Amino acid sequence: MEEDLSQHAESTATHNMEGEASKEERDPESNSLDQPLLKRSNTLSSNPLAIVGAKVSHIESLDYEYLKGFIYLTGSNLVLTLVASILCVGFAPTAAGPGIPEIKAYLNGVDTPNMFGATTLIVKIVGSIAAVSAGLDLGKEGPLVHIGSCIASLLGQGGPDNYRLKWRWLRYFNNDRDRRDLITCGAASGVCAAFRSPVGGVLFALEEVATWWRSALLWRTFFSTAVVVVVLRAFIEYCDSGKCGLFGRGGLIMFDVSSVTVSYHAMDIVPVAIIGVIGGVLGSLYNYLLHKVLRLYSLINEKGRIHKVVLSLTVSIFTSVCLYFLPFLVSCSPCDPSLPDSACPTTGQTGNFKQFNCPNGYYNDLASLLHATSDDAVRNIFSTSTPTEFHPLSLVIFFSLYWILGLFTFGIAVPSGLFLPIILMGSAYGRLLGLAMGTYTQIDQGLYAVLGAASLMAGSMRMTVSLCVIFLELTNNLLLLPITMIVLLIAKTVGDSFNPSIYEIILDLKGLPFLDANPEPWMRNLTVSDLADAKPGVVTLCGVEKVARIVEVLRNTTHNGFPVVDEGVVPPMGLAIGATELHGLILRAHLVAVLKKKWFLMERRRTEEWEVREQFTSVELAERGGKIEEVAVTKDEMEMYVDLHPLTNTTPYTVVESMSVAKAMVLFRQVGLRHLLIVPKYQAAGVSPVVGILTRQDLRAHNILSAFPHLAKSKESEKGK
Amino acid sequence: MEEDLSQHAESTATHNMEGEASKEERDPESNSLDQPLLKRSNTLSSNPLAIVGAKVSHIESLDYEYLKGFIYLTGSNLVLTLVASILCVGFAPTAAGPGIPEIKAYLNGVDTPNMFGATTLIVKIVGSIAAVSAGLDLGKEGPLVHIGSCIASLLGQGGPDNYRLKWRWLRYFNNDRDRRDLITCGAASGVCAAFRSPVGGVLFALEEVATWWRSALLWRTFFSTAVVVVVLRAFIEYCDSGKCGLFGRGGLIMFDVSSVTVSYHAMDIVPVAIIGVIGGVLGSLYNYLLHKVLRLYSLINEKGRIHKVVLSLTVSIFTSVCLYFLPFLVSCSPCDPSLPDSACPTTGQTGNFKQFNCPNGYYNDLASLLHATSDDAVRNIFSTSTPTEFHPLSLVIFFSLYWILGLFTFGIAVPSGLFLPIILMGSAYGRLLGLAMGTYTQIDQGLYAVLGAASLMAGSMRMTVSLCVIFLELTNNLLLLPITMIVLLIAKTVGDSFNPSIYEIILDLKGLPFLDANPEPWMRNLTVSDLADAKPGVVTLCGVEKVARIVEVLRNTTHNGFPVVDEGVVPPMGLAIGATELHGLILRAHLVAVLKKKWFLMERRRTEEWEVREQFTSVELAERGGKIEEVAVTKDEMEMYVDLHPLTNTTPYTVVESMSVAKAMVLFRQVGLRHLLIVPKYQAAGVSPVVGILTRQDLRAHNILSAFPHLAKSKESEKGK
Repeated sequence: MEEDLSQHAESTATHNMEGEASKEERDPESNSLDQPLLKRSNTLSSNPLAIVGAKVSHIESLDYEYLKGFIYLTGSNLVLTLVASILCVGFAPTAAGPGIPEIKAYLNGVDTPNMFGATTLIVKIVGSIAAVSAGLDLGKEGPLVHIGSCIASLLGQGGPDNYRLKWRWLRYFNNDRDRRDLITCGAASGVCAAFRSPVGGVLFALEEVATWWRSALLWRTFFSTAVVVVVLRAFIEYCDSGKCGLFGRGGLIMFDVSSVTVSYHAMDIVPVAIIGVIGGVLGSLYNYLLHKVLRLYSLINEKGRIHKVVLSLTVSIFTSVCLYFLPFLVSCSPCDPSLPDSACPTTGQTGNFKQFNCPNGYYNDLASLLHATSDDAVRNIFSTSTPTEFHPLSLVIFFSLYWILGLFTFGIAVPSGLFLPIILMGSAYGRLLGLAMGTYTQIDQGLYAVLGAASLMAGSMRMTVSLCVIFLELTNNLLLLPITMIVLLIAKTVGDSFNPSIYEIILDLKGLPFLDANPEPWMRNLTVSDLADAKPGVVTLCGVEKVARIVEVLRNTTHNGFPVVDEGVVPPMGLAIGATELHGLILRAHLVAVLKKKWFLMERRRTEEWEVREQFTSVELAERGGKIEEVAVTKDEMEMYVDLHPLTNTTPYTVVESMSVAKAMVLFRQVGLRHLLIVPKYQAAGVSPVVGILTRQDLRAHNILSAFPHLAKSKESEKGK
Repeated sequence: MEEDLSQHAESTATHNMEGEASKEERDPESNSLDQPLLKRSNTLSSNPLAIVGAKVSHIESLDYEYLKGFIYLTGSNLVLTLVASILCVGFAPTAAGPGIPEIKAYLNGVDTPNMFGATTLIVKIVGSIAAVSAGLDLGKEGPLVHIGSCIASLLGQGGPDNYRLKWRWLRYFNNDRDRRDLITCGAASGVCAAFRSPVGGVLFALEEVATWWRSALLWRTFFSTAVVVVVLRAFIEYCDSGKCGLFGRGGLIMFDVSSVTVSYHAMDIVPVAIIGVIGGVLGSLYNYLLHKVLRLYSLINEKGRIHKVVLSLTVSIFTSVCLYFLPFLVSCSPCDPSLPDSACPTTGQTGNFKQFNCPNGYYNDLASLLHATSDDAVRNIFSTSTPTEFHPLSLVIFFSLYWILGLFTFGIAVPSGLFLPIILMGSAYGRLLGLAMGTYTQIDQGLYAVLGAASLMAGSMRMTVSLCVIFLELTNNLLLLPITMIVLLIAKTVGDSFNPSIYEIILDLKGLPFLDANPEPWMRNLTVSDLADAKPGVVTLCGVEKVARIVEVLRNTTHNGFPVVDEGVVPPMGLAIGATELHGLILRAHLVAVLKKKWFLMERRRTEEWEVREQFTSVELAERGGKIEEVAVTKDEMEMYVDLHPLTNTTPYTVVESMSVAKAMVLFRQVGLRHLLIVPKYQAAGVSPVVGILTRQDLRAHNILSAFPHLAKSKESEKGK
């Protein structure tokens, strides 16, 4: 659903109406258009079969033109899909999909390689434009969030990896926390740009994306979205006179439904609850089915690049066929006589009542939804005070089509967002429910569509406050707020009772070690020393270590951090001679940096501070990467020493070995750690000052359960109870 | 400003108009009332002095009636203030003030005694109604937040302390985290009830009140406010026909300004920035002056209860005098002829154009603001498309009056909120600025008033997202959102450059040990062992301890937690005999509970689990309170033993002694601790397994600087640079 699509479809339709006018004049049905409208609509409704028959002959006579239109449509869609798919498969596989789960994981502490690079950014922008223009059932919201984060990350580090600016002030951002803050701001800006929803963007970033919240982060994201909304407004003002095509339609509010007055009473709680419950059930069912489809797709995608592209093209062709031919299934509806002639039927790019295959004075309600950009489709289906605009059959077809397309489009190798497909599905479901309620409620059907969209979103994504504000800012109807809140809460609660949110499902499928907010109850009965015992013994280094030992350790382990222990030191109190001291933790990256620089000492001695400063700049130490395989050390050098003290982090976070896993996990997540040292609870000569080291992987419930199968059993038996 | 006030004033005015009709007929000015309106207004504007002269004689003739009105007003205000003040001073001193700083501190981990009790709740409700009705310059928003939190706390623990329900399900809430969550939900509900702003309430709770955020907390607060808004709507619907006085006016939106279309262009950024900058300066100046006044008041209040009450009564009399007499200073304005006669002038409880001392066809603009409830005053000053309604002089008087009243009212011993006074001041300032801008901008003056209120709020309270949403939900004008965001951000930034937010100032004045989000930079260069060395040595207990020693420790220290250390144990590996073991941390409350129960052992032995279970229920251990002074131990008992092992928390959080204070503080705050144990980095025989213990007070910047004066000096020299 995009500009091209509607343009093609419309140009075909317009062609018919003009070029084939002579044929139409001979058509008895079109002659009757001059009769009074009321009479005609009576005739139509009393004898639908005759109309269908007439239409079929009409179609046959226009076969060639329709076929041409179809080929234009399918061809252009196919080419655009091919562009998006080849870009994603060939240049930046991380640009496929929405990117939101990976950003969520990054802010939780899991870095996906090449996620925020310049190539990814360019592929995401171009690919997203191509994919949305190709009429695929996907949104631009997820990609915009990813684009925002990419820009934030690149700005923060001073440009792409290869051509990085080395400005002094950029160093301020060159730490993990500021990078995280910047990426959160970028995500908020993305949502703000997608929905023109500044507060919704802030809340989305905080509710769904961020792991660590701070008050400062709140106003920083707020500042980003304020800038976005000011820029957006400036563009909309500039484009007001139609200079930029469809951009800027609706001003700052995309789907305004404020014209209708919301009136509801105590009894309306029943339909509102029904919307919420069904929305929750449908949302979790959608999550379940999407999980299955994604697993199937991952099997196909594993077979190679060419399979990925072919899969995308298949989905594109299927989409084009459905979008073009399904409107022929429904019958034409007569225009409401109270509307001006220019409003119904329409043949332009936009409009609520598309003529398509219908005679003058009639419109095809399904074409109004399918032959339009997604934004326009939502606007049409949200339209208020038009209770008879859409037939139930059209809505059923629309809902089913988007249900199927949504499931099969999301996993293909193009940038794709989840928001708009779910909003489209949900609005159709809401409007259908509104039709089914009939005269029971006083709530407008357009508002039912809004509530339906909200319920399906909450049922699938399980957000509350952010969705509430996004829908408020999309529709500009503050009086709808209390109902929206109830619908969202019910749908989320119902959905949560079936399965986790869609982003959690995707995180799990991608195997990203996301650390949940709350420890499992059984973690309270396990101590960290139990965990440490189940792992291979901890590898420690001495404060002044032999090069040979460092190389050996780096080659034989994959650990990213090593405790540094000094033996035979004299504590300041002079109590005991021959004590051991926990000096701190050294990172693999720093060890590799030392080996690369060949910063070796001939004898076993401590270095001075100036020696270190001379060798390593703070920028060098902030860099990651560098592999032990790339380092060549001669045999002589192997016998030399390295003083690890100056490169060691002397203030690592620690837990005592008797600490429960649950509390260790809280510490790990709240403080945002990569390594957590375990120290002994005993104090005596000969006890090692480090008992073990815990990483993110050690604290994941899944991994603990595979190491301690009896816990999994006890967990299951608890569930069974 | 309350109902009584306007009623009295109006009844006096009405009396004049009717009872003194014979006098008025003799008045030449009132005879001219039958002349055409347009002509009259010309006469008025051409010769204002004549009118003032006429009015003065008019007033003199009505002296007695005005005096009666003034006595009624002042008397009723005085009585109401007396009620509120005596309740607060006599029964619940914690109910005075807004209560928000204490709630903020509670959620940070600082418990103010008697803050959430049943007495406090009742005094707060009754006192707040009395104080607002007394026409004092204070809001009901802060008290509503406190009331919400009190209700949440009482519900969570099953009722007031003395008559507590012992239901089983209530135990689920009987832990600190759930209590915190409930109180956060209560705070959100309070804001929601005050402003009919559900999303704003959630954001206020999260941005300003809560210290620890979680996604789960987000939807829980959202659920609370959803319930509040549904109940509110039901009441508003019920009261629609005027059954409940002024309640429910304006429906769900209190100050609707959506009728005016917002149009602004690039150049409007200048006035918007000016609003923000001046708002920020005024806000921080207000904070500064309020700080001074509160310090002065604390000196007065220290002198005793009677001084507190007298202070409140003085403020009340001053307020009444100003409210009643100031409107006489301004001249009457002619009604806009396009308005219907019933709209201007008005003599009822509400209305935008109050007649007060003016002849028919005229209104007193200052009386419209001062002789009304605060809500009505805001509604009047926010009124849009009425550019000539308020004279600059009236606005200047109004702004100055509320600036002075706001400063001197806040600290008196009645429940008082800060929101509405600042909104009133800010709206007057905004409207004045709008008048000053004249024709430079296209923004309506009513919107200027909204922006002024927002800027002063942000300048004083330093919130952003929550204020933005609260103002959105108060005014229902989504198109104003981008400007509001800019104003808020500018005002906050300007304000932050001068002094901290008003709540932080109050927290500091009250001496609550609030733990800031970010450690100071100089904390990175200080280790926790430096801190521990500056304190008295740590007091440890043995696993099985003599009663005499426990009593002695409890009597001679005020610590709330003691490390428990076992000596001479054999580690499982059998490496060293005579090792010492850090068993954990025991709370003072549990030690007192043991002494009270006299759970003593004759010999030095470890107890079995069933012995402990028999003695202590989980509810007993969750209770706090109990003082060592209340415990009597005989001389024989002193020689007995207690096994502390089963009552010890075996998984305390710890840091190694080389840890920096900055990182220890992050751990302390993020995980929400009361005690943090320091363990040695050395491992040897004879080293104590606990080096020290840190509490909240030890980690406060202020306390560290007084223990390490050289850090304070280096900090100042850094500032000087």
